[in-house]
Amino acid sequence: MSAPVRVAAVGLGRWANVLATAYGRSDTVRLVSCFSRSADKRRTFAERHGCGSDDSYQALLARDDVDAVIVTVPNDHHAAVIEQAARSGKHAFVEKPIAVTLEDARRIERAVDESGIVFACGHSARRLGGLRKIKALMDAGDVGQVSVVEAVFANERGLTIEADNWRGDPARAPGGPLTQLGVHQLDNLQYLLGPVTRVATFGKPMYTRVRNDTVNVTLLEFESGQMAYLGTNWACPGVFSINVYGTEADLFYQLDFSWWSDSHLTDEHSRLTKRAFARATGDPDDFDLQDVEVEVPQVDHLRDEVEEFARAVRGGGRVEVDARTATRNVAVMLAAVRSSREGRMVQVDELMG
Amino acid sequence: MSAPVRVAAVGLGRWANVLATAYGRSDTVRLVSCFSRSADKRRTFAERHGCGSDDSYQALLARDDVDAVIVTVPNDHHAAVIEQAARSGKHAFVEKPIAVTLEDARRIERAVDESGIVFACGHSARRLGGLRKIKALMDAGDVGQVSVVEAVFANERGLTIEADNWRGDPARAPGGPLTQLGVHQLDNLQYLLGPVTRVATFGKPMYTRVRNDTVNVTLLEFESGQMAYLGTNWACPGVFSINVYGTEADLFYQLDFSWWSDSHLTDEHSRLTKRAFARATGDPDDFDLQDVEVEVPQVDHLRDEVEEFARAVRGGGRVEVDARTATRNVAVMLAAVRSSREGRMVQVDELMG
Repeated sequence: MSAPVRVAAVGLGRWANVLATAYGRSDTVRLVSCFSRSADKRRTFAERHGCGSDDSYQALLARDDVDAVIVTVPNDHHAAVIEQAARSGKHAFVEKPIAVTLEDARRIERAVDESGIVFACGHSARRLGGLRKIKALMDAGDVGQVSVVEAVFANERGLTIEADNWRGDPARAPGGPLTQLGVHQLDNLQYLLGPVTRVATFGKPMYTRVRNDTVNVTLLEFESGQMAYLGTNWACPGVFSINVYGTEADLFYQLDFSWWSDSHLTDEHSRLTKRAFARATGDPDDFDLQDVEVEVPQVDHLRDEVEEFARAVRGGGRVEVDARTATRNVAVMLAAVRSSREGRMVQVDELMG
Repeated sequence: MSAPVRVAAVGLGRWANVLATAYGRSDTVRLVSCFSRSADKRRTFAERHGCGSDDSYQALLARDDVDAVIVTVPNDHHAAVIEQAARSGKHAFVEKPIAVTLEDARRIERAVDESGIVFACGHSARRLGGLRKIKALMDAGDVGQVSVVEAVFANERGLTIEADNWRGDPARAPGGPLTQLGVHQLDNLQYLLGPVTRVATFGKPMYTRVRNDTVNVTLLEFESGQMAYLGTNWACPGVFSINVYGTEADLFYQLDFSWWSDSHLTDEHSRLTKRAFARATGDPDDFDLQDVEVEVPQVDHLRDEVEEFARAVRGGGRVEVDARTATRNVAVMLAAVRSSREGRMVQVDELMG
């Protein structure tokens, strides 16, 4: 058995704590150090998770007993932090989105390519038991041929957000919930249907103190010709849902997002329903539909994603969400923001080309 | 008590039979005659519903014992049939959509205005118990301020439709399910949120023998600033759903459309769920949501719409879906078709102006 991959947390906000807690359920990684500019945060985090800490990022990167960094600093600092890690030969896992500009995303791609480090982006949602089951049902032909997928990700964040919060800044969180929530679903949608080619988005600030968008609706078209809808909303009680429309069956997936951070329990609070023809006579007045609950595999999405990363660090396979995959999610996200701002449909190639 | 309003069915396809059956549950209207170009259909219909019949539309319109016509001829014949009725002083009820071109819709508006007949269009979906309850909850402020409504209407029609069916002809059913199903939801959406100002649509033929669209996804923006999504699909097991996202609560409404024609039973096969904050602490790791089932009033949407029409004929009040309301639904529908064809966002005023 390989020794655990030794990781260090960089950026010690709420999410770093959620991840460290999930890593406590793994034998494949071991948290050895942490860094934040705040000494208080370092002390609290190190005590809570039983790891060391470093006074500077440079000192952390100089350690021989750190194999990889787990980066949860704000989105617009990802590129600089990952470039430094790559120069020090440290592997890097970064929270989604990989970046909020394509320039930053490309800097990360280059740093990864030139250094040869293992890199993964934390699009854990595609690892949920429900997503895996939906993909398996689609791949097995159980839903027939899929025309449309609808995805919604919503919470109440915009209702209480302070005017000076970075999430309310269109430069730091373009599209508001489109960046912070929607990019999860963009990854899920591209995981299920392949690359997006075209988007159309309406978005605006609603019922909020910030000037950034807090509500957006987006249409997506895929290389495959299939289509999708993405609703992202910071002005309502939380919703995480995915609906799949196929020629043989529809799938309706709902998740109680309040269990998201307890990633070993998330799937228990989800529900996947399959609607198929019980009897199709061809007579529009004489047909029946049948809804059946589908069992959702129970996974631990935050643990599983870091274990895949750790295996790749040890030379065992590739990561699923690499820099290019994560960049593609950001490109679609930024195309949606451009569509909303310019009031026109936008080809993703306008940004990627 | 007024005597029943005496109606005659014009166009004797499947839907005329569904309506006549619903009218059998009413004391407010009485079916006295029918007409179709097919003598067979006239005979069968008259026997089944216990009414008379006429050999020509002219003969039917000449009868003194017919107060109003119930028009279910194909969409592109509505205008001519209603103009004739109006010239004969017969009131007219027509199945949705009022027309498939704005020219035809305007002809109907003019005929109604000039003759002074009572006119109503059969957008019965807004009369469903679930829709009435959603509107009541919104009006009472129970969901807070609404940002987005999502509506889906889907069935399997496109999978089996023959290549020469009129529904496969973009001129007779523009946008396919957008015309045949979506216009119901466009009426519902404008009933809930007011006039639509802008649309963006992707649509195409999928998994079908016809060259018309069989799948479309549409974004809508309203004068109010609120937004909506409409999914219309002829390539999957049936779905009729409406989701409302508000600052205080979300609403999820599902209807088993296989009970649509049994309009006194439809509401029994629907479900309305309200999701609200059970406990909102402001801490993103410490909140709860609560889903509660909402009782749906039981109505008879097809009987109720004709009874409202009959009361208006007797001078008792106005109809809810008049020619202008129905025309507005068609304008949005045609704006969506134009958006899809031209690959750009379309202002409804481009068509209405």
